[in-house]
Amino acid sequence: MTAHNPLAPRAIEADIAGLVEPEDAGLGADDVWARAVWSLLIEPGDGAAGAAVRHLGAREALQRVASARSDATGTPDLAEGISRWRPRLVDASLSQIFDGARRAGLRLLTPESQHWPHALDDLGDHAPLCLWVRGEAATLVRNRPAIALVGARAATSYGDHVAMELASGLAARGVSVVSGAAYGIDGAAHRATLAAGGETIAVLAGGADRPYPAGHADLIDRIAARGAVIAEVPPTVAPTKWRFLQRNRLISALADATVVVEAGWRSGSLNTAAHAATLGRPLGAVPGPVTSAASAGCHRLLREFDARCVTNVDEIMELVPGGLPATSGRGEHPRRSADQIRVLDALSTRARRGVDDIARRSGMNREDTVATLGMLELEGLVERDTRGWRRAGSSPTLF
Amino acid sequence: MTAHNPLAPRAIEADIAGLVEPEDAGLGADDVWARAVWSLLIEPGDGAAGAAVRHLGAREALQRVASARSDATGTPDLAEGISRWRPRLVDASLSQIFDGARRAGLRLLTPESQHWPHALDDLGDHAPLCLWVRGEAATLVRNRPAIALVGARAATSYGDHVAMELASGLAARGVSVVSGAAYGIDGAAHRATLAAGGETIAVLAGGADRPYPAGHADLIDRIAARGAVIAEVPPTVAPTKWRFLQRNRLISALADATVVVEAGWRSGSLNTAAHAATLGRPLGAVPGPVTSAASAGCHRLLREFDARCVTNVDEIMELVPGGLPATSGRGEHPRRSADQIRVLDALSTRARRGVDDIARRSGMNREDTVATLGMLELEGLVERDTRGWRRAGSSPTLF
Repeated sequence: MTAHNPLAPRAIEADIAGLVEPEDAGLGADDVWARAVWSLLIEPGDGAAGAAVRHLGAREALQRVASARSDATGTPDLAEGISRWRPRLVDASLSQIFDGARRAGLRLLTPESQHWPHALDDLGDHAPLCLWVRGEAATLVRNRPAIALVGARAATSYGDHVAMELASGLAARGVSVVSGAAYGIDGAAHRATLAAGGETIAVLAGGADRPYPAGHADLIDRIAARGAVIAEVPPTVAPTKWRFLQRNRLISALADATVVVEAGWRSGSLNTAAHAATLGRPLGAVPGPVTSAASAGCHRLLREFDARCVTNVDEIMELVPGGLPATSGRGEHPRRSADQIRVLDALSTRARRGVDDIARRSGMNREDTVATLGMLELEGLVERDTRGWRRAGSSPTLF
Repeated sequence: MTAHNPLAPRAIEADIAGLVEPEDAGLGADDVWARAVWSLLIEPGDGAAGAAVRHLGAREALQRVASARSDATGTPDLAEGISRWRPRLVDASLSQIFDGARRAGLRLLTPESQHWPHALDDLGDHAPLCLWVRGEAATLVRNRPAIALVGARAATSYGDHVAMELASGLAARGVSVVSGAAYGIDGAAHRATLAAGGETIAVLAGGADRPYPAGHADLIDRIAARGAVIAEVPPTVAPTKWRFLQRNRLISALADATVVVEAGWRSGSLNTAAHAATLGRPLGAVPGPVTSAASAGCHRLLREFDARCVTNVDEIMELVPGGLPATSGRGEHPRRSADQIRVLDALSTRARRGVDDIARRSGMNREDTVATLGMLELEGLVERDTRGWRRAGSSPTLF
């Protein structure tokens, strides 16, 4: 094994030992191993790598990178890709990655895995080739809706409050909350979900063994203990701007709908929203004061991206196709007909009035006036005696 | 002249003397007078009366009401209408109305008038048959956009603040502000428009001589002094629920667009919004905190009525077809390509790095890396010397 032939015969079984879940024992070790190596060679969302793996299989595609053999593959991007991927393969210390993952207690999922979240398949060739998971991989295979709650790191107390309200309401309905573990809205959403006893998934831009931001190390530990912390890059890899942008596509792909709770005009969460829109996933935005710069991004989503305005958990559930039926606490008020409004206008709560008087005051004819008074009487809104009609004591507001 | 033939020969010229504007001297006194009488007989928005006047002319239709002669008119609703209108005609004290209007300094406009706001014609048979105007009728014939700013009486300080900001911004652009002179948002909008030296129109549900609410008598005086206070009901008539609802149709019809600034779930301003939607006039809603019940109606408009989310004057101007072009203060940030983001990720502001190093870190091939570095160098985002490349000192934020 030389530096120039990093794939010279290795102990593949030993490399991935302890990294595959018991349920995945039957999967081909070669494919799992090769996908793990691929996750080291590429930047997230590399469609050329996705296409090569789809055409050739992960192991064969990898062999071609190792031998710099791009001929006759039928995948025209491979030559260009090899020039990008090969430098990292030459440098790679594969056993170091696998040992590190084992030490961090990560598990490795591939699209064949029992717990692979097939919602990611909608990303096509841009889907991750594998996932590195800390915590309970079964969380990813849900028989429950999942909602992404995302937003600004520089959240206001309003945004924090709303994120927590929404997250705990979703948790109470058995909905998984997906977010990015960042400061601000992300953190509030994870925290409130955990506090409500719910299930939450954090998608990291760097390695799943590498809590980011560092100040959320405890929170990320708690998410791993009760849900899952996942990454498509291998352990120890640092988050970068590009990886954050691509991480956002995983958040929106994993969720049935994405809701931006609070976001400035240029917040990174708008990128998550754009991914959701690209994937055809429903997109919601929580409005806020127009005087608050921290809500300007949400208003931009409402104006420019056709996001749905959501103000509570019921309205979020309406975003989810086949989600729980919303049970709004707000009763619809009865619609009054034009005649009913006019007759009520013409009545006093004190003075009794005759039908002709009421007809003249309401500008209606006698017949309609009588009929309308009868309807209103049935509803208890008016009352009569021998001296005439008047409004009942406590008429409800008409607006 | 008996109580049963109120239209027996009268001094029509004397009745309307001083009520028509000098510009309207050429109009037929009969028609003007008859429309004024009609405004006494009907409740606002009476489509049957509108149709009868359209078919027969105001004077002839009125004669038929007076003589209870509904035969052979070709207007099937007339018989039914007469049963509604006649009682008021029998009771009417016409000279009292005309004298009252003169004393209050009102002017009478009909669709033939120089200053008739033809935007109301979109209401068809439901358009007012005349308008009673206090102040400057010319305000109604604008060569400038008009925006209706409406909202809750029970406004919060947030709503008041936003209404004032928007109104003064609109006034500064020469836009007329139309509203209903109510407490809360309406009052704030009128007041700020006046303070900014702008033109504002108040549409009242009762007589134009009858300030409502009484607490806004001073404000309404000031609106009349600088703009116009209008009503479709004759002087002295009291506002009723029905007349408020119909008044709202005039507000939305007079304006090029209607904006609801703050409104509870059942605010009457939602009725104005519904009229705007019915008329096909653009509708905007200002979002607010989801924790504020006073904004629930605005969010409802965004969700259920397809209102446009508006947060500032520029966005309101975008509602107006052919309105002033919006001049947003917010510059668009330059879009970075994926390659640019990756290369910037791979650079340090301190350490100099060689092209091969940068290529490996960014997961790109050498050629693309060099090309991208060149682009970034042109923008001043990266710099190089003989030791390699690094980020320039003050790269702008990428999000």
